[in-house]
Amino acid sequence: MKPKLTLKHIAKELDVSISTVSKALRDSKEIGEDTRQKIKAFAKLYNYKPNNIALSLKNRKSKTIGIIIPEIVHHFFTTVISGVEKVANELGYNVLVCLSGNSFDKEVLNMEMLANGSTDGFIMSLAKETMQKQDYHHLEEAINQGMPLVLFDRVVDEIACDKVIIDDVIGAKKAVQHLIKIGCKKIALISTVDYVIVGKLRTQGYKKALEENGLSIDEELILKIEEIEDSEKKIGNFLKGKDVDGVFAVNEHFAISAIKALQENGKKVPGDVSVIGFTDGELSKRFIPSLTTVSQHGERMGEEAARMLIEKLERDVEEIENYKTIIVETELVVRNSTKHY
Amino acid sequence: MKPKLTLKHIAKELDVSISTVSKALRDSKEIGEDTRQKIKAFAKLYNYKPNNIALSLKNRKSKTIGIIIPEIVHHFFTTVISGVEKVANELGYNVLVCLSGNSFDKEVLNMEMLANGSTDGFIMSLAKETMQKQDYHHLEEAINQGMPLVLFDRVVDEIACDKVIIDDVIGAKKAVQHLIKIGCKKIALISTVDYVIVGKLRTQGYKKALEENGLSIDEELILKIEEIEDSEKKIGNFLKGKDVDGVFAVNEHFAISAIKALQENGKKVPGDVSVIGFTDGELSKRFIPSLTTVSQHGERMGEEAARMLIEKLERDVEEIENYKTIIVETELVVRNSTKHY
Repeated sequence: MKPKLTLKHIAKELDVSISTVSKALRDSKEIGEDTRQKIKAFAKLYNYKPNNIALSLKNRKSKTIGIIIPEIVHHFFTTVISGVEKVANELGYNVLVCLSGNSFDKEVLNMEMLANGSTDGFIMSLAKETMQKQDYHHLEEAINQGMPLVLFDRVVDEIACDKVIIDDVIGAKKAVQHLIKIGCKKIALISTVDYVIVGKLRTQGYKKALEENGLSIDEELILKIEEIEDSEKKIGNFLKGKDVDGVFAVNEHFAISAIKALQENGKKVPGDVSVIGFTDGELSKRFIPSLTTVSQHGERMGEEAARMLIEKLERDVEEIENYKTIIVETELVVRNSTKHY
Repeated sequence: MKPKLTLKHIAKELDVSISTVSKALRDSKEIGEDTRQKIKAFAKLYNYKPNNIALSLKNRKSKTIGIIIPEIVHHFFTTVISGVEKVANELGYNVLVCLSGNSFDKEVLNMEMLANGSTDGFIMSLAKETMQKQDYHHLEEAINQGMPLVLFDRVVDEIACDKVIIDDVIGAKKAVQHLIKIGCKKIALISTVDYVIVGKLRTQGYKKALEENGLSIDEELILKIEEIEDSEKKIGNFLKGKDVDGVFAVNEHFAISAIKALQENGKKVPGDVSVIGFTDGELSKRFIPSLTTVSQHGERMGEEAARMLIEKLERDVEEIENYKTIIVETELVVRNSTKHY
């Protein structure tokens, strides 16, 4: 038996992208006639089986769930994995984890690898690049071939499947409302660029809370950051000399960078400025001052996702597709980075 | 094709442990004649293939590396995964991650699952329970069947294979020597129970540093903790009223719990007591005071492990086995939880 031909081999051999190969093999009109024919001929010549997902499905159940996440350094994703593990273990399933590294190509390759008999279904949070490209054909392919998929956290409306999300808008609104309640009037927002959906939604929540409380939105007080790497510097520059009494940050790293920047500018937290973060990691709990934060319940999200997926996998008959979106509630955890009433 | 029979099925059906099934199928004399025959008959009846590792090896290369780690909540393990990912991506390999949850049975099942054609080799850090039981038959089996294995961090002498470790003894010695150099005379140690090898080695380093500097070892100043969960309380009780001027903790969680406990007892860190941790996570960097720590270079450990494994996988001929142990050097990172000279 020769090594199995993969999308990657074909792409490399014909010098086109993985996405192009995948689309051409599904006869997508997005790909020009010429290229399509060339790719299909090559695949035929080397006996590539585009339908190995469906084949493996019919042949056997692996009793294994595949998780594909963008990165592992975020504490949030490790808590989701713990939640999936918990339910999967209880119900006799194994779990395999793959990282996309926020790369679209790697996400596609991971799916191909896992679909090839190793797993029965997917739990995924999308790569940043996938959302930027808005190319979801690999997800559609899996679904079309009867491979159940549950998206969590970084989900998109374009894909009809089971989803587990949190109430990002409401969560952010809760945080900002709390800042207003303790007397803050000039509240800065530190968010991510808009194509990261959760950043966008949390920005909406921030704006809603201000509007509903009769405070005006000052775009000067809003910072949107692309990468986590140089965020500390960017947040430092942003806050330097800014007259604020509250900061809402969309993750705990941004929140802690904000506290450090404020302290370096001679401001006291929470004496002069109250700070609230999002996601309740180890850092939030143990930082001094401990961080008031919107807790995301990553473990519960993982549990819900695993439960939905396994339920689908264990159904015998093909029922009419019926997708659910479970919204896991957030909770404001008040600690020492915000003033008390 | 019927669902594949696994070790787990057999164990459940015959009401014996997974380890017993695995050993019986290898004809291990550790298992009584009766049980062995019963298990082998059952396996034969249902066509169980104990040699699927070897079979899959001969048939194809999956170009995939399997990582099995005890847990994912430790920042250290996520950095190792990042390191493996980096080298694997460069060299065209995929990576699958599985968690043993520190359970022996799950470690055995994970290996069975991954060996079954999904991966070409393993990078592993052993489960706590495996080290407690000292049962390594699953590792031996993989190696005997030609499946390369690289152990890292939690390794054992009993298994001959490639290993990546850090200089735990030297790392710990460096830390304690630093404490002595800045004037500490009563240095407490917060370690793990001894069957966690790294805890044992770091304890050795602590003792060596004291001895070489003419300080006596006071067992009253040594705390050994089993579980991370209730460590905060245990460390609090241990330090209450203790007259110490230095603390060396074998991980960052213990170090930070120590700082909190000392502060609650009215002591200043580093004014009254200097504290050093081990592993350089986000928490160490961002805690206030930032933590002086022995940095473990998890990412480099992952890179070395991946490089060794892939080298083995890409050798064409069967060479005489030649195992290496790579020692990744630790580094003392001096921050603000220790006094300056």
